[in-house]
Amino acid sequence: MKESNVDVLIIGAGPAGLMAANWFARTGTNYRIVDKRSSKIFAGQADGLQCRTLEVFQSFGFGDRALKEANHMLEISFWEPDGKGGLYRSARLPDSIPGISRFQQVVLHQGRIESWFLDAIRKWSGGKAKVERPVLPVRLEVDESKVEDPDAYPISVLLKTLDENEGTPEQFGAKIANGLFRSFEGDQEKYYKDAKNLANDDSLELVHAKYVMGCDGAHSWVRRQMGVEMEGESTDYVWGVLDSVPITDFPDIRNRCAIHSADSGSIMVIPREQGLVRLYIQLRETPRDPATKTESEMGKNEQKAIEKGRVDRSKITPEVILDNARKILSPYKLDITDIKWYTAYQIGQRVAPKFEKFERIFISGDACHTHSPKAGQGMNVSMMDTFNLAWKIAYVAKGLASREILKTYESERLGVAQALIAFDHKFSRLFSGKPALPGAIGNDGDGISLDEFHSFFAKGNEFASGTIVDYDDSVLIDKSAGKAVAQEIDKDVVLTISPLAKNISIGRRFDTAKVINQSDARPWYLTDCMLSDGRWRIVNFAGDFKQVPELSKKLNWLGEYLAGESSFIKKYTPPGAKVDSVIEVLTVHASKRVETEWDDFPLAFRPRDCAGRMDYWKIYVDDDSFHEGHGHAYEKYGIDREVGAYVVVRPDGYVSMVEPLGEEGIEKIAGFFGGFMIEQKVPPRTMFEEIETYGADSYGRPVLGM
Amino acid sequence: MKESNVDVLIIGAGPAGLMAANWFARTGTNYRIVDKRSSKIFAGQADGLQCRTLEVFQSFGFGDRALKEANHMLEISFWEPDGKGGLYRSARLPDSIPGISRFQQVVLHQGRIESWFLDAIRKWSGGKAKVERPVLPVRLEVDESKVEDPDAYPISVLLKTLDENEGTPEQFGAKIANGLFRSFEGDQEKYYKDAKNLANDDSLELVHAKYVMGCDGAHSWVRRQMGVEMEGESTDYVWGVLDSVPITDFPDIRNRCAIHSADSGSIMVIPREQGLVRLYIQLRETPRDPATKTESEMGKNEQKAIEKGRVDRSKITPEVILDNARKILSPYKLDITDIKWYTAYQIGQRVAPKFEKFERIFISGDACHTHSPKAGQGMNVSMMDTFNLAWKIAYVAKGLASREILKTYESERLGVAQALIAFDHKFSRLFSGKPALPGAIGNDGDGISLDEFHSFFAKGNEFASGTIVDYDDSVLIDKSAGKAVAQEIDKDVVLTISPLAKNISIGRRFDTAKVINQSDARPWYLTDCMLSDGRWRIVNFAGDFKQVPELSKKLNWLGEYLAGESSFIKKYTPPGAKVDSVIEVLTVHASKRVETEWDDFPLAFRPRDCAGRMDYWKIYVDDDSFHEGHGHAYEKYGIDREVGAYVVVRPDGYVSMVEPLGEEGIEKIAGFFGGFMIEQKVPPRTMFEEIETYGADSYGRPVLGM
Repeated sequence: MKESNVDVLIIGAGPAGLMAANWFARTGTNYRIVDKRSSKIFAGQADGLQCRTLEVFQSFGFGDRALKEANHMLEISFWEPDGKGGLYRSARLPDSIPGISRFQQVVLHQGRIESWFLDAIRKWSGGKAKVERPVLPVRLEVDESKVEDPDAYPISVLLKTLDENEGTPEQFGAKIANGLFRSFEGDQEKYYKDAKNLANDDSLELVHAKYVMGCDGAHSWVRRQMGVEMEGESTDYVWGVLDSVPITDFPDIRNRCAIHSADSGSIMVIPREQGLVRLYIQLRETPRDPATKTESEMGKNEQKAIEKGRVDRSKITPEVILDNARKILSPYKLDITDIKWYTAYQIGQRVAPKFEKFERIFISGDACHTHSPKAGQGMNVSMMDTFNLAWKIAYVAKGLASREILKTYESERLGVAQALIAFDHKFSRLFSGKPALPGAIGNDGDGISLDEFHSFFAKGNEFASGTIVDYDDSVLIDKSAGKAVAQEIDKDVVLTISPLAKNISIGRRFDTAKVINQSDARPWYLTDCMLSDGRWRIVNFAGDFKQVPELSKKLNWLGEYLAGESSFIKKYTPPGAKVDSVIEVLTVHASKRVETEWDDFPLAFRPRDCAGRMDYWKIYVDDDSFHEGHGHAYEKYGIDREVGAYVVVRPDGYVSMVEPLGEEGIEKIAGFFGGFMIEQKVPPRTMFEEIETYGADSYGRPVLGM
Repeated sequence: MKESNVDVLIIGAGPAGLMAANWFARTGTNYRIVDKRSSKIFAGQADGLQCRTLEVFQSFGFGDRALKEANHMLEISFWEPDGKGGLYRSARLPDSIPGISRFQQVVLHQGRIESWFLDAIRKWSGGKAKVERPVLPVRLEVDESKVEDPDAYPISVLLKTLDENEGTPEQFGAKIANGLFRSFEGDQEKYYKDAKNLANDDSLELVHAKYVMGCDGAHSWVRRQMGVEMEGESTDYVWGVLDSVPITDFPDIRNRCAIHSADSGSIMVIPREQGLVRLYIQLRETPRDPATKTESEMGKNEQKAIEKGRVDRSKITPEVILDNARKILSPYKLDITDIKWYTAYQIGQRVAPKFEKFERIFISGDACHTHSPKAGQGMNVSMMDTFNLAWKIAYVAKGLASREILKTYESERLGVAQALIAFDHKFSRLFSGKPALPGAIGNDGDGISLDEFHSFFAKGNEFASGTIVDYDDSVLIDKSAGKAVAQEIDKDVVLTISPLAKNISIGRRFDTAKVINQSDARPWYLTDCMLSDGRWRIVNFAGDFKQVPELSKKLNWLGEYLAGESSFIKKYTPPGAKVDSVIEVLTVHASKRVETEWDDFPLAFRPRDCAGRMDYWKIYVDDDSFHEGHGHAYEKYGIDREVGAYVVVRPDGYVSMVEPLGEEGIEKIAGFFGGFMIEQKVPPRTMFEEIETYGADSYGRPVLGM
């Protein structure tokens, strides 16, 4: 039996696990990722990519792949019974709310998304980091005496490498890929017993980890080791899913559609890449399993929540699903070809009450929240879980920040999961219920009110976009300079706004705006200059410093401060590392570009590296471009050109602070970083030596030296 | 010795040869491509991609790679002597003229561009098509009795596979890649003699080809076999080129700059990807070779043109070039790091008087035009040569069109080459000449007038963009419906315009505009729905057919005509091939999208394939979008919403005709195709069986069946 140490062990290589691996590869953090299956999935599963997810993909350099390969889903159509045995289109809505993001929702199958992550991981790690498959975790033990020691490896996980057959999940109906029997458990108990007798079994490895991430799905083994049980409920609504190319005279088959039939249930249409369409089809009558059949899979409390019995999946075939679809869509005709995948599920909403243990073991994604798939949330929220967590673990594992910041994972993401569950609870009931008669206002007895449905859909799309997640005050978010501002549309939504930046919400993601590079006049989305590479950013909105002498003074003061020895940025940057490798200062000024000279900016804002190469990609201007118009960034962010502001943005793109220009603001920012950063006295730790010297970032800019 | 047949043999795998190979792979045409070098280039050479080239890359599905990896060059700065020993910025201009194209000029090294082609070729051919290296052509013979027989293989080329050492060009100064001794000739005479004695030498292959394309550079072996000699002249101006990361206090180093010094010559600055900068540096004093030294490389007529002697390249080092640069740039300082490549060249302009022989052997790119590199034209015009030629050869080789269309290669491209030579002649003299004193109006004695220089630069950028190439009337371009319209800016530029489409120039490339897909509300650039896949397009600008009954009648008439047996499109489509595989009809209407139903369009505009899959990607509308505004396509093209028009677009994106809607227009279009298309009676010929069934086009849309 092998034995080894690793900083982070990720269990499960679905979207949540791969997002974590991608972060660790990107930041040069020591990690491993294992998955019990032999290969990534090739069809089916999740398919929707929300606005915020696309923003994050863009920040890792592969947003363009999504935009190019996926179907762009722009419009929702609502179809209702017309009372005469037919259906009519009752409304159209944009699928993504205009202006909410640079991107709109797109759809394509999960296997492609996993490929992009694998390609990115290969790139960041120079080909060294790989998913280890099929590898099953069989035992997890924690030495509780060591959990507070940042240098300790208190968790021991016994890993078993399976042979190919063991790692290949059984699929029911071998001809068509389906999700009915997708998850397989592996017999951990058996391997554990074997392990006791077979200490020199080469297929076993005892891994000592500082941190373990459970990204192992709804039946999470890691969650069970933590002793955490899901809480929530199941419903009587059963839905089938079918990925195929439909042959139909239904005119809106390439739109997202919510179709309520009078008596036969509902359909959601999700048009996909390459002419495919996913149909979510309500199955009104489905044979059920006796409830006892699921006992081996779930804890006892969970079992209680599923009193109504699970669907007997063996009875569900593409034909059964298609028959239901035809009834709902009648009088329109429906045939299908190119069936790629199908599955069925019973709607339920469940969430784990705890997302971590000892700030050492964490669960993410389906392992801590499961719900109905129709709003396209599961994969997105799962990836956002580990997008929130992994950079924090990286900072702690590399000795840059204190373990204190790990508390913010649960405090930030548990609320998101709970909001998701509440959203899905309402969404799925509105979707699965019978519709009211046409023209009815309000809830007509048993029926679902159209008005309620449409308005919930519109509001729901804001939530579903992933862009309005708002993290609370914590060691990583300082809302003290902001005021609570209730939103006009929904008074329950309260933003925290500094008067210095009236359209930047502290705690939400830093939205993008087009700005112009001072050195070469190229327009950039500002966030494309703030990639997810592990760095904090201070965006120095320096204002119109050529016209306002006070702003010019503050710009020069900051230049001197940053060049000086007392700079907090230097304090938290490892000796020998690049000056901008932990906290980067980007300048966005508001003077005219052609009235501003390169020499107007102190060298600290355009530093040279050890070889003398200058960084020409740190100074931007809110000005007209030759070909793409004016970004009006100051207006978009609500920043006064004669006042300016510092905006502190976390490595994951969320706004930590908005503070005034000059000494006062910098002192407060220094204090903020002092709350969790660790003074650096030794050179940086990185897993992949060449991580920062591969030559170029994702958008053609150089990666300079130290 | 092996012996084989091939439809097309391409000699030379630089950008021109790879563009041809890409076209043939894309269209499933039987071809081979050989190159005498062992590997593609890794540094240096050409680096500018003009607007039209990017449009073409986009049409092959990899424009995004250029936009992502390359440096976007937006601004030109002009620097002149200030008369006090210094330099001053005399003007700024946009590098690409705003509105001239969807794209702006970008720069990165040629090796990356070749990679995109190789990736595309791999994709289109399912991995089957490869560049054969190092393979040297040693003999070419034509059986003149067979050149008019479309099924014959009248050209025999003897190919010699070299060993790796023979195929690796010697580089002077092994530490730094340079272009001084890049081209190597191979000793064809020797191999030919060997061949006579060694008929069973396995390294030799006798290839019988229908067509041969010489894409083998300035010293083209194919051109010499054709007996064609370059015509033109050389100048006394010698320039060095240096790719490096500059360390300088010159403020505009990330702009394209034209810098004239008072006495030390000129520099052109080309900022590149990854922080690199290419400097073109005039070398005032350079040792020359005796002219006789070049005799083995060139024909005798060419020799005469180079009376002044060539540069002694062995004396040119990076240090020599840098020293010149420092003098020109003074008083600004210049150091460099990361030298990637350097070379030197003597400015000359030469063009071949003939581009083909027997309409069987063709030369393209540097093989038929060479000039100064500073306007970034060489690689672009070279690729546009074969982009113009290869689809025509594909049509003839596949029996779809008569050999008549091959005449249009020389008639269309010789004029472009001559215009290029004239442009470069003026451009390089303005650049290399001494500047006038500051503030001087007009040409001050020996000096170059600033005004003349700037205005030529601005006009030149229109030419350089590649978007204003205008092909004459021919079997492939019918200008009869157009009127000559002289342009306001330059009266010498005369467009041919139909009153039906006031902003579409017949003979020029079909420019793009944003339209909305009728079926799913997605905005597309119309040209992204007209990819370079070998198909002709008839764009049916159907107008506001919901409001104008006459237009509705014409739409329905065309639907019936296309569905009927007498359709000319059916006549020219091989039996068993997809209905849209030779000529595709795209509809762009001008009614409101939400007032138009899918069923309003006859099935011919939204055909089903053999499996019943419907094509939802053929009907577009000029309307508002949810997120990207209104494309105003009718306005942009100058088409009246109440009149409409048919626009016939060639496989390479050039406008062949603009004709009126309805029977009259269709009759004229049918007559046009009748001029060169061949009625199809047998199933299609394709090299790669699965070419049209790989599932998706480059932008996520399906490729449907027959």
